Amino acid sequence: MKKNYLLTPGPTPLPPEVCEALSRPIIHHRTPQFQNILKQAHEDLKYVFQTNSDVLILASSGTGAMEAAVSNLLSPGDSVITVEAGKFGERWTEICQAYAINCEVIKVEWGKAVNPKDIEAKLKAGKGKIKAVFTTLCETSTGVATDLKAIGEVVKASEAVLVVDAISGLGAIDLKVDEWSCDVVVSGSQKGLMLPPGLGFISLSPKAWKMAEASKCPKYYFDLKEAKKAYDKNDTPWTPAIGLIIALTEAVKLIKTDGLENVFSRHSKMADATRSAMKALGLALFAPDAYSDVVTAVKVPQGIDGEKLVKTMRDTYGVTIAGGQSEMKGRIFRIAHMGYITEFDIITGISCLEKVLAQMGYKFEMGSGVAAAQKVFQK
Amino acid sequence: MKKNYLLTPGPTPLPPEVCEALSRPIIHHRTPQFQNILKQAHEDLKYVFQTNSDVLILASSGTGAMEAAVSNLLSPGDSVITVEAGKFGERWTEICQAYAINCEVIKVEWGKAVNPKDIEAKLKAGKGKIKAVFTTLCETSTGVATDLKAIGEVVKASEAVLVVDAISGLGAIDLKVDEWSCDVVVSGSQKGLMLPPGLGFISLSPKAWKMAEASKCPKYYFDLKEAKKAYDKNDTPWTPAIGLIIALTEAVKLIKTDGLENVFSRHSKMADATRSAMKALGLALFAPDAYSDVVTAVKVPQGIDGEKLVKTMRDTYGVTIAGGQSEMKGRIFRIAHMGYITEFDIITGISCLEKVLAQMGYKFEMGSGVAAAQKVFQK
Repeated sequence: MKKNYLLTPGPTPLPPEVCEALSRPIIHHRTPQFQNILKQAHEDLKYVFQTNSDVLILASSGTGAMEAAVSNLLSPGDSVITVEAGKFGERWTEICQAYAINCEVIKVEWGKAVNPKDIEAKLKAGKGKIKAVFTTLCETSTGVATDLKAIGEVVKASEAVLVVDAISGLGAIDLKVDEWSCDVVVSGSQKGLMLPPGLGFISLSPKAWKMAEASKCPKYYFDLKEAKKAYDKNDTPWTPAIGLIIALTEAVKLIKTDGLENVFSRHSKMADATRSAMKALGLALFAPDAYSDVVTAVKVPQGIDGEKLVKTMRDTYGVTIAGGQSEMKGRIFRIAHMGYITEFDIITGISCLEKVLAQMGYKFEMGSGVAAAQKVFQK
Repeated sequence: MKKNYLLTPGPTPLPPEVCEALSRPIIHHRTPQFQNILKQAHEDLKYVFQTNSDVLILASSGTGAMEAAVSNLLSPGDSVITVEAGKFGERWTEICQAYAINCEVIKVEWGKAVNPKDIEAKLKAGKGKIKAVFTTLCETSTGVATDLKAIGEVVKASEAVLVVDAISGLGAIDLKVDEWSCDVVVSGSQKGLMLPPGLGFISLSPKAWKMAEASKCPKYYFDLKEAKKAYDKNDTPWTPAIGLIIALTEAVKLIKTDGLENVFSRHSKMADATRSAMKALGLALFAPDAYSDVVTAVKVPQGIDGEKLVKTMRDTYGVTIAGGQSEMKGRIFRIAHMGYITEFDIITGISCLEKVLAQMGYKFEMGSGVAAAQKVFQK
């Protein structure tokens, strides 16, 4: 009898209310019945995005929504700034380059956060020619959170729009989309929103919509002007992912019941407990200066096989955490505390980590990680 | 107590096995557990597509897979033939034009099928410059089936690839992808495959992959070379629609249990019964010369409000059929007999149609439609 526990930074576990909604008989999308649901979903997303702008729903994973941001805002030959502080920042550069956009790349060491001053300097050097600044709310590959409030201040003063990949983090940590002048915010369903993957979301500020008017990149499926036209009639240009949208309204009901502030403080406490546990176990955080409350990246201690650690936790004990990606493969592991996760799930994860670390010969006092986490939760 | 019956050409009803699979706890996609499921899904799709080529799975609805066909095969300035025999044929032209592809359009009167000889003539006139011929297996907007066997013969002899939108029809009516030389076949989850919308599928023949090598259209999310690289490792380049893929393996289990031949003959019988019922009711088929076994389009009789007919069936009695799209709005209605549908669902649909037609003052013998259908099922 193996029981599975999911502590990965997407997908995140599904609440039973979501599972139930997913299992319902399907309904047709061009009906008043579904239009009402879509209208609710639109309102729900505005709440989670903390925005007055419309949030468009795409039938795609988050990367599709990222591409929509690029192909709808820009034209070949345009210049932009991309912040690469990990695998997902690099994705912005890759997408832009696929559309022949010139990227001024700000390379940030993995595990560090971008300095808003570096963005300011590059914007100034661009002499008004930079059309967009591409950033990442929580860089999942490193666990680092970005100071979007400060970056918003910097970009607001320029001609450029601020584009945020908030796939990881939205609905888990604070992102005041309007207040912080985040012009374009992209997200996905399988993270803070506690849904299976398959929905992409994108919001555009008036400044961004104005830029979209001039865009010459080819697009069809991800044409946001078409999506907006349909949105205004509580419709979608193509067949939507009906089941996921119905489930979305159930997931946001849960978020609204708690209230965003409480959701954020729950995430913050779980992250704090996780970090305390790692410290108690003598493990080093990968991003001690810039950690997020979404996912905690931890250095694999010397002498321990990081890939085997993750594999054993998952395949022997049913606790799935994430390993490192790309250059960090085998060198870090990542425990997510995002979405439908409680303190007891965190205790479970740490307890399993201790069990496997002990088996692998790592020296520490058994139970010290769990106890440290418990103390945080007791506060 | 209202009970809902879905007789629309997508989405189609979900089998309980699919509903159950959708409600399971989510699993992570970068695990051997999911890789095994993806491997199964790949094999399943080859079976349903009747092809030895790989069938790539996209997290999008069918239109996304259509765009993938265009953006991966072609370059701006290329010339193609598009067959427009309805709303979905027109979509091929729209997508191609979004990518600056020159379209030689073959306009076919709604309700008729394209004559393969017209494609042959246009290919000859193109003097080897036509790169692709875009067609539609079942034009959902009119209920018309296309003779792809004959078209395959014609296109095979040319430099062009044959691209088929089989979103409606795949897994419901016969499409011998390899045998009929269909180079690129696109489909979606919410039709013959009995799943919610949210998955797109695309197969490419060796001839198509060769053409893809030269393609210069920009693409990222729908980059099929990236998808193929990941496919070979039972992986996906971006987060896949995990839940839908798991449910896909359950749906195809059902198809395999019956066997494709039996699935096709069931659809054929349901279509036959529906057509007989319409005739018995004195209603005229919209496509008497080219009907498909996927969806039956019927002319709204004089004096009857077609939109009200569909609305009353749905909102008063819970039986959802489809009205006409675009220029056929209010002028036809469409009863789908696709996917998880049995003879008793058809009887239900016809019975409800009779009920509402009678209420609206249409003159006919009550029960004659149902009886005609029963007789076909009794054969």
